[in-house]
Amino acid sequence: MKRVAVIAALWALCAFITYAQDVFQDSRERWMAIAEQCKPELQMTEVVPVSVVKAVEDAAAFQGWKYVPVPGLENLSEVDFKQMGSVTLDFGRHITGHLVLRLKTLGDVMDAPVRLKFFFGETPGEMNVPLDPWRGSLSRAWMQDETVTIYTADRDVRLDRRVAFRYLRIELLGGNFKFALDGLRCEATTSAGECRTALNDDCPQIIKDINRVSLATLSECMQTVYEDGPKRDRRLWIGDLYLEALAGRYSYKNDLLTKRCLYLFAALTDANGRMMADLFEEPEPHPQWGTYCLTYSLLYPSVLLEYLNDTGDTATALDLWPVARFQVEDALWRVRDDYTCNAGRAWLFFDHAVMDLEVPFQGAMLFALNQTCELAERIGKGDEVKQWRNLAAKVRKGARARYYNRKSGLMESPDGSPASVHAQIWAVMGGILNAKEGRKALETILAKEDAVRANSPYAMHYLLEAMIRCGMWEQARATMVDYWGGMVRKGADTFWEVYNPEDDLHSPYSFYPLNSYCHAWSCTPTYFIYKYPDVFQR
Amino acid sequence: MKRVAVIAALWALCAFITYAQDVFQDSRERWMAIAEQCKPELQMTEVVPVSVVKAVEDAAAFQGWKYVPVPGLENLSEVDFKQMGSVTLDFGRHITGHLVLRLKTLGDVMDAPVRLKFFFGETPGEMNVPLDPWRGSLSRAWMQDETVTIYTADRDVRLDRRVAFRYLRIELLGGNFKFALDGLRCEATTSAGECRTALNDDCPQIIKDINRVSLATLSECMQTVYEDGPKRDRRLWIGDLYLEALAGRYSYKNDLLTKRCLYLFAALTDANGRMMADLFEEPEPHPQWGTYCLTYSLLYPSVLLEYLNDTGDTATALDLWPVARFQVEDALWRVRDDYTCNAGRAWLFFDHAVMDLEVPFQGAMLFALNQTCELAERIGKGDEVKQWRNLAAKVRKGARARYYNRKSGLMESPDGSPASVHAQIWAVMGGILNAKEGRKALETILAKEDAVRANSPYAMHYLLEAMIRCGMWEQARATMVDYWGGMVRKGADTFWEVYNPEDDLHSPYSFYPLNSYCHAWSCTPTYFIYKYPDVFQR
Repeated sequence: MKRVAVIAALWALCAFITYAQDVFQDSRERWMAIAEQCKPELQMTEVVPVSVVKAVEDAAAFQGWKYVPVPGLENLSEVDFKQMGSVTLDFGRHITGHLVLRLKTLGDVMDAPVRLKFFFGETPGEMNVPLDPWRGSLSRAWMQDETVTIYTADRDVRLDRRVAFRYLRIELLGGNFKFALDGLRCEATTSAGECRTALNDDCPQIIKDINRVSLATLSECMQTVYEDGPKRDRRLWIGDLYLEALAGRYSYKNDLLTKRCLYLFAALTDANGRMMADLFEEPEPHPQWGTYCLTYSLLYPSVLLEYLNDTGDTATALDLWPVARFQVEDALWRVRDDYTCNAGRAWLFFDHAVMDLEVPFQGAMLFALNQTCELAERIGKGDEVKQWRNLAAKVRKGARARYYNRKSGLMESPDGSPASVHAQIWAVMGGILNAKEGRKALETILAKEDAVRANSPYAMHYLLEAMIRCGMWEQARATMVDYWGGMVRKGADTFWEVYNPEDDLHSPYSFYPLNSYCHAWSCTPTYFIYKYPDVFQR
Repeated sequence: MKRVAVIAALWALCAFITYAQDVFQDSRERWMAIAEQCKPELQMTEVVPVSVVKAVEDAAAFQGWKYVPVPGLENLSEVDFKQMGSVTLDFGRHITGHLVLRLKTLGDVMDAPVRLKFFFGETPGEMNVPLDPWRGSLSRAWMQDETVTIYTADRDVRLDRRVAFRYLRIELLGGNFKFALDGLRCEATTSAGECRTALNDDCPQIIKDINRVSLATLSECMQTVYEDGPKRDRRLWIGDLYLEALAGRYSYKNDLLTKRCLYLFAALTDANGRMMADLFEEPEPHPQWGTYCLTYSLLYPSVLLEYLNDTGDTATALDLWPVARFQVEDALWRVRDDYTCNAGRAWLFFDHAVMDLEVPFQGAMLFALNQTCELAERIGKGDEVKQWRNLAAKVRKGARARYYNRKSGLMESPDGSPASVHAQIWAVMGGILNAKEGRKALETILAKEDAVRANSPYAMHYLLEAMIRCGMWEQARATMVDYWGGMVRKGADTFWEVYNPEDDLHSPYSFYPLNSYCHAWSCTPTYFIYKYPDVFQR
């Protein structure tokens, strides 16, 4: 036990010296330059509406609303919008970009400005619930309703705000002259490019559908970084990056975008070398200071490892190795004398759920240790982490000793918190449990009534991954078809940030229109479908 | 009498041939090219607010509201706007341009968009009356309230909409992070340049004030054309152009802008050669079809004559002579057998007032005939209108015979409509009454309880002009000090489109916030003050 303390003290000293020196100081500028060199040109496609639609309240529809097509698109550019007053358009698919339109004069000269309200939405439900008074716990400004004054007819007007939507309602708020809405289109953007992979012809329809929606989700999130969601939060998070990069490997293969994101996080580490959980590109690339999320930082080496495995780009892996290693190194002081890990007051994210975090954290630490060792060995840096394999074995032992209940077959918190699926998932991810134990733990927890369940596609991804690691092929496939297939059956064009099969209006933000309905972290079915074709494509 | 009919028929034939041929067809493109060559570069000045202000309801204030300065400007860029929620700023003077500001992060990173409502206004009253439900008879979109979603902090945001205002209220509609309003300024534009004239040092303060406000009004309306008002209608009207050009001759002397406007109207005549009353520059210069206003078209030769007198630019006068002549020629068929003029169903504008139009129209026709003859003689084109002097004398006789009541001393409508000041004004302008008769008519009508009075600065300009033509120097001066001085005393920074000393809320559009509070047609005091310094500057 004493040796552990000494090791921990040594790491702490090491870290202190690192802090004092800001070891990445000399690299940040170069890293940022590389990130900027990798910035993709966005591909623009003009997308036009496919139908005028009418909202219909329907208890059977997702969130209680659906749109049904009605005539009107064919002569929209001829009909006096002053008479119409309002119109709702369906663009046929989820798109991200800028709306362009023209007020076409119908006989009259435009002699006064026109005020239009544009309301863009991802789902029919979001479009039809009153927004005000505002009930959400995040900014009202996330809602995509924009009021615009237009002074000039017969000229394209391009809305400044980038929006993510499938549906658009336009309302006339002011204007006395006769005009029609003309040339209405969205300049939709993505950096995804063509999908480089194809399914087997005899792949079942539901898998084809899930794959299509996965690809659409990923493509929409691929802009000048991997965004988490093009409606909200429109930014790069480590946790989303990892899943997007996984899905991207089997679809768009935009390695340069992954490289850009890896370099952005490296360039934007703080003076201590730590990575914040998310970052912004504008006005200058900058992290969201204060969002150090330990479980996200610990994923960075995994992103780099996957990138290396996919591209063989050892130069990048070597260049970013110190920053990847540091994210784990910086957490090693958390290993207690009994080789359990102390999350302390760090922010840990596994899911949108109220749950014990300590037990899954053990798995997350081990996963990071193992992945970082693998990365090190792949690039000849094994000697830099030569103690880590040994340490990992001890942490595994420590975790099993403290949290694994052989009787119940579950990883459990000693403080009596309800057992969670997350604890079992991460025990498998980190190798605390072997395949047989993991299988038992997962089957037990999924059958357990009062367990904390996976509450987001993010957590569901790791559940699938854990099932696969335990050889639970059938269950993994059934889970995908049930969960992601459930969204498809409810009409998803893109997969959602939040999906609770029992509650369409569920939201972590008090108000479901704030949910992102095109969210990167739910795009991974395509990864599983291509990586394990024998399981998912049959 | 028969000869008149023959002349009229000849003119009609002539006009018909003209119509059929579209005589200006070959010139329009060249005229437009000249207009575009004369398009001024706008001069930009950055104007910053001078104070934070608080609205105070005050029955003694114009429209019942005033703003009083309060502390807060000095640290506006340091104070959390989320705490403030709202702020009203006074920019110290009327400005026209684009607002620029920056959301400055205060510690936090901006992690969600911010929604701000900007409400720009010309008067405190306009800023403090509820706008919705909308009561105005013109487009709601004229009101300068804009809601803007901002995604990026620490970068200048420039509002797309050009606004005309002195006061700005900003309200937070959504946004959860701490920020301050920073770098707030207006990129104010004008093409006026420096004022080239100065008042006598001993000029009375009220005249100095009136002159200052006149100059500000004109300067604000001078953009890439002489606009009528930078808030509303933001366009070029013949009636405003005439008055702006008159005022401009004695102040900014931007002859090129006048030349541009003259050419724009010429280039945009219809296939019949007629000029519409107003025109727009965007997306391509085009007239407001359907707004043929006879009394405005008849003013075009006067604009050209004044321009020529000011600049000596005979080439331009000769080039535009056919189009100027045509505007009058085209109306000659209206001369009846008894030499009175028949306005028929043509749109005539003298004022925002319900009134008889026939009597003032006699004067407007004569004024146009006389001015056009003067113009022709100045450029050696007298032979083209050699019958017109003779015709004018007969029209004068005809008008006097039918409308002049020697007993009352007034020009009166035979149909018993209430007598108007406008009928007397235009009788003087057209020379129907001589100075002595005119003086009596004006004095009588101004003293008459039930007379139709001048109801706008536009009509008041012609009242002053008529007074001066009748030698009513004292009354002209008193009228200016009373009427325009009244606006100054009520706090005008720029002169208003509508001013009824008895009713601050008077509006021709059912709702006073629609009124333009910086309106070209009220800028002419500066013209009188400089043209007649012995009267107005003493």
